[in-house]
Amino acid sequence: MKYILILLLSVFVSNAQIQKEQLDLMPWPQKIDLGTGTFALNKNFKVNITANPNSRIFIGATSFLRRLDNRTGLFLPQNFLTQINESPEAELQINCGSAGKIEINENESYELIVTSSKITLNAPNDLGALHGLETLLQLLQNNSTSYYFPTVSITDAPRFTWRGLMIDASRHFQPVAVIKRNLDAMAAMKMNVFHWHLADDQGWRIQIKKLPKLTDLGSNGNFYSQEEIKDIVRYADERGILVVPEIDIPGHASALLAAYPEIGSKVDNGIGSYAIQTNSGIYNAVLDPTNPKTYQLLEEIFDEVCPLFPGAYFHIGGDENNGKEWASNPRIQEFMKKNKFSGKHDLQTYFNMKLIPMLKKHSKKLMGWEEIMTDNMSKDAIIHAWRGVNEGLQPGESLIKAAKSGYNTVLSNGFYIDLMLSIATHYQNESLSKNALLSPEEKARILGGEAAMWSELATPLNIDSRIWPRTAAIAERLWSNENVNDLQSLYKRLKTISFRLEEVGITHIRNKEVILRNISNNQNTIALNDFSNVCEPLKNYKRNGGGKKYRMHSPLTLFADACTVDASDAIDFNFAVKKYLDNKNIENEVVVTNFFRKWIKMNTDLIIVSSNAPLVQPLLPLSQKLSEISEQLLLLIEKKQNSDKSKLNILIEQANIRNDADVELAVLSGIKLLL
Amino acid sequence: MKYILILLLSVFVSNAQIQKEQLDLMPWPQKIDLGTGTFALNKNFKVNITANPNSRIFIGATSFLRRLDNRTGLFLPQNFLTQINESPEAELQINCGSAGKIEINENESYELIVTSSKITLNAPNDLGALHGLETLLQLLQNNSTSYYFPTVSITDAPRFTWRGLMIDASRHFQPVAVIKRNLDAMAAMKMNVFHWHLADDQGWRIQIKKLPKLTDLGSNGNFYSQEEIKDIVRYADERGILVVPEIDIPGHASALLAAYPEIGSKVDNGIGSYAIQTNSGIYNAVLDPTNPKTYQLLEEIFDEVCPLFPGAYFHIGGDENNGKEWASNPRIQEFMKKNKFSGKHDLQTYFNMKLIPMLKKHSKKLMGWEEIMTDNMSKDAIIHAWRGVNEGLQPGESLIKAAKSGYNTVLSNGFYIDLMLSIATHYQNESLSKNALLSPEEKARILGGEAAMWSELATPLNIDSRIWPRTAAIAERLWSNENVNDLQSLYKRLKTISFRLEEVGITHIRNKEVILRNISNNQNTIALNDFSNVCEPLKNYKRNGGGKKYRMHSPLTLFADACTVDASDAIDFNFAVKKYLDNKNIENEVVVTNFFRKWIKMNTDLIIVSSNAPLVQPLLPLSQKLSEISEQLLLLIEKKQNSDKSKLNILIEQANIRNDADVELAVLSGIKLLL
Repeated sequence: MKYILILLLSVFVSNAQIQKEQLDLMPWPQKIDLGTGTFALNKNFKVNITANPNSRIFIGATSFLRRLDNRTGLFLPQNFLTQINESPEAELQINCGSAGKIEINENESYELIVTSSKITLNAPNDLGALHGLETLLQLLQNNSTSYYFPTVSITDAPRFTWRGLMIDASRHFQPVAVIKRNLDAMAAMKMNVFHWHLADDQGWRIQIKKLPKLTDLGSNGNFYSQEEIKDIVRYADERGILVVPEIDIPGHASALLAAYPEIGSKVDNGIGSYAIQTNSGIYNAVLDPTNPKTYQLLEEIFDEVCPLFPGAYFHIGGDENNGKEWASNPRIQEFMKKNKFSGKHDLQTYFNMKLIPMLKKHSKKLMGWEEIMTDNMSKDAIIHAWRGVNEGLQPGESLIKAAKSGYNTVLSNGFYIDLMLSIATHYQNESLSKNALLSPEEKARILGGEAAMWSELATPLNIDSRIWPRTAAIAERLWSNENVNDLQSLYKRLKTISFRLEEVGITHIRNKEVILRNISNNQNTIALNDFSNVCEPLKNYKRNGGGKKYRMHSPLTLFADACTVDASDAIDFNFAVKKYLDNKNIENEVVVTNFFRKWIKMNTDLIIVSSNAPLVQPLLPLSQKLSEISEQLLLLIEKKQNSDKSKLNILIEQANIRNDADVELAVLSGIKLLL
Repeated sequence: MKYILILLLSVFVSNAQIQKEQLDLMPWPQKIDLGTGTFALNKNFKVNITANPNSRIFIGATSFLRRLDNRTGLFLPQNFLTQINESPEAELQINCGSAGKIEINENESYELIVTSSKITLNAPNDLGALHGLETLLQLLQNNSTSYYFPTVSITDAPRFTWRGLMIDASRHFQPVAVIKRNLDAMAAMKMNVFHWHLADDQGWRIQIKKLPKLTDLGSNGNFYSQEEIKDIVRYADERGILVVPEIDIPGHASALLAAYPEIGSKVDNGIGSYAIQTNSGIYNAVLDPTNPKTYQLLEEIFDEVCPLFPGAYFHIGGDENNGKEWASNPRIQEFMKKNKFSGKHDLQTYFNMKLIPMLKKHSKKLMGWEEIMTDNMSKDAIIHAWRGVNEGLQPGESLIKAAKSGYNTVLSNGFYIDLMLSIATHYQNESLSKNALLSPEEKARILGGEAAMWSELATPLNIDSRIWPRTAAIAERLWSNENVNDLQSLYKRLKTISFRLEEVGITHIRNKEVILRNISNNQNTIALNDFSNVCEPLKNYKRNGGGKKYRMHSPLTLFADACTVDASDAIDFNFAVKKYLDNKNIENEVVVTNFFRKWIKMNTDLIIVSSNAPLVQPLLPLSQKLSEISEQLLLLIEKKQNSDKSKLNILIEQANIRNDADVELAVLSGIKLLL
């Protein structure tokens, strides 16, 4: 009887008016007018496409149908959509006038109108229509037995034209399947630029047919064939995504120089003395800008790489050249003197400027990390702003400087997701708004931003959980209105958004369980899972201890790899503590003390699991500390014992020390509040 | 204190002598001499390779190291192994005389000797060495803090030379990543033939450059490029696996004929009247063997396909041609009369014989499903035996007939894993042993067997759970001695083996959770998981109700897709019932009754979940029945009430009726025993 009541109640709830706040949309659209009715989804639901788009919308609409029936279990009738006006009677009408161009500043707007009997999606081109389909999927609601859309009218368009994700495929190679599923997730979040970091000290990852040594000697066999590159570019195009390749030069060139040491800057011209790097860090290996062979080889590379990427941009890296090899090579010093170069920056600008015509030949614009922004650099270059507080600059400082100096610019400072910082950090990245003093012309030069996923500690197994769901918040920052910035709303919507990313193949949830099963040695993972929900990987590259702990072939199947930023129980606990301190009633107290009981039990269970699981051993000191802290706090709160606060403080301090698990307790802030 | 005791205890246990029965090896080696000591694995562990193999063993040994450090968390020092005698002092010495050939009847033996200070792996070639590395990985043991190998001496070689897995990439396209991870799992189970079903009524999946219409009109855009084929063949080669392509002709040809209707057998020559099929089943579409253009086109196809596959075998299908189009085409009937063909089999033999020289040109032998075995068929052909009881034949009948008739033959009857039959069914497939009456020469013609994974109901999301872990049992049947057949030992070892398949990327465990999360609409999945552990998908193609329920684009994200054969709780429950009936003591009773309490609670929880999850609704009638049966049985057992058995029988009968969840309760056999 009780359950019948629940059922009835839920039917009742489902018929109640949906509030805008209930919608789990991300990025949040520019304008939503919510009606009071519903459009009921049933198994006869069909899609029709009109106007004159390219094949992109047929692929997108087919994929929309498959995601809809996979999610709902409805056996929708349409298979592959292939023709215009195939089903004029269809409930969903997609009108997209023309084929969108995969380029910056293309119109990506759309209008979505759901009435109780019809859904209309209008867009000037298929790119907007694809965005509209993602919004429609996010609008889907259900009661206990069926699915429906709320009646609504949405008009939407992005705030910034450049909404990117960079994936580093050099430090750890990321196979085609990893890239494709992340392109799908990007499309779901209306992101439109995939920046592909293809070469660095740890590996050269793109086949160059004329220069096979690059992959023979620079990749350990892990690279993309040109066919695979084309396949991914096509796959991205079908999802409305521009691919920007990056070949990082003149620094970060160990892998390139392992193949062609003769264009390196070592005094002996480096023959045989460069090698692929297997640690993290910044290396000396740098191309020789004074050697004509350098440009000859680069031109051969560009001549093969550029035609693979139809987009207008080519990223040449240009970052973190320490100049040491240049400084210690007398021939290069002589060259600089002769040319009256005041320092390594002048030499690098000289080098960069030589690249521009090579790229121009292929109608490509040069893009580079902000180090390329020197006095003499061409204003045609796009400046990729990445440095900030860690590098002694103000947040957004380089972005503003670039815009004021006349450069188009893209922001990644504040969007380095490999730093393992909280979603709030990225969501509240205000640099894009610090443009009060910019002229409209200068403002227009800020194209947008990019999440940057460096892969020193990211493998195909764990990379999705490093990118997602935090990148969804970055996508919203770049798409939605500046004043869409409520953290509670973000957290709430993210629960659904993160779950739905599984639908497009993102493995952030499932692979966590794989890692925990491995750690547990196939035992029960409940305690490990509980512990992972209060621990976060060490932040700001601390996990890798100056790049010395993990080499590129070190295991990344450890507890820290199962843990993620924004540990879920930690968020809940820290929130519960604040609520309890606001009002020390018994309900609020129990919520807090139940966490302590859970952690005491968890520690006990972890000890049991550890008896047959060596990989659990490194976690025990920390879980033991948490258990002891919990016991003390239970005494303090429940028994009102004036427990020994200094003992507690010592425990907390000990829990704060770097441990062999390479994680930090994310509940310490809440715990400290209780003292 | 309690936990310190547990720890001490476990250290004590770990130092105890390992028994052979404790080893989770699969397939079980031919000869094992277990010592009493251990080889301790530590972070300095290295591998050295001697003799003169090809690059295969370097790739394999590198992968061995990565799996070892991913599993143990040890930071092993070696990165990519590339040279012979790189680390002569290494603890593991691999000696493999030469490069193995990827062909049938190649020597795959190895010898593995573990002493307390050294591990030696000897093999005549690198193929045997790769198998030895898999055995070594399976030998790894641990105590609470560290890892070790038992001292042991193993000599091993396969019983059959053909140990295959067929994957149907036509019904549902299976992307490169799916194929690669399954090749890795095959290698882990010492399987050596990947049979790739590339064309059928539902899709043509291989690029033919000279005939682009095949994929333009026959694939809906889902096909392998020739570069991808080459990549997979190379990947398989690196793992010691032969790839056998299949182009299914003259029947199963709807997709081919959708592109080239002019070589079909329809009266009107079919122009425009063939289409890719979107349902399961057997279709009429068949090539016209009387049309010279047919052979011209096939030759063009073979000329492109054969060079992609260096192996000696080419599978031409040849199955399930119903002959209807031939029968109703007067021109074809006339041709048969003129040639004095007695029926469709003669015409098909005529067709098949025309293929042999086309394949011979590329040094390929023709292989086909058993229907090709007609009186006039060349004895060079390899007969793939698949029919059995369901087709009115005795198990193994065709295999014996083929061997007696002078054909080399491979068995798939009894290994159709898409039938969703229990692991015991496949493990106890005795057909390979029914050779008592065969001469040694005839016996030698039985090359081995193949698990057959047809994909009408298998997508990239669920296919791994259809293939694994059952195919591991088939691998053992084909590798190990005939008398290795203890089911309890199989089940016991499989718990570890199945878990370790995650290590090579198999998704059977993780994707189950993905499907359940989708069904639950992101709610708690405990009850759904409990229910999935007593339910199995309908068997023998009943799920698809004569091929009519599911089309190729229907959702396969349903409860039945999360369920697997050999439902784990059902096995435990049915076993517990037998134990209880043998001895009705209170311990045995509680084990049984706890299941009933669990299922009553589960049903309650499912109802709660269903209030926000339409996909749970179809499960409720069945879980409700199980709950009611459980209540009745609790009364019967605990209260010794003479409960109404006829009521129970009716409930059980009702639980046996086909339901909308497309699953069956796997606990009914145990329940019936209790009555």
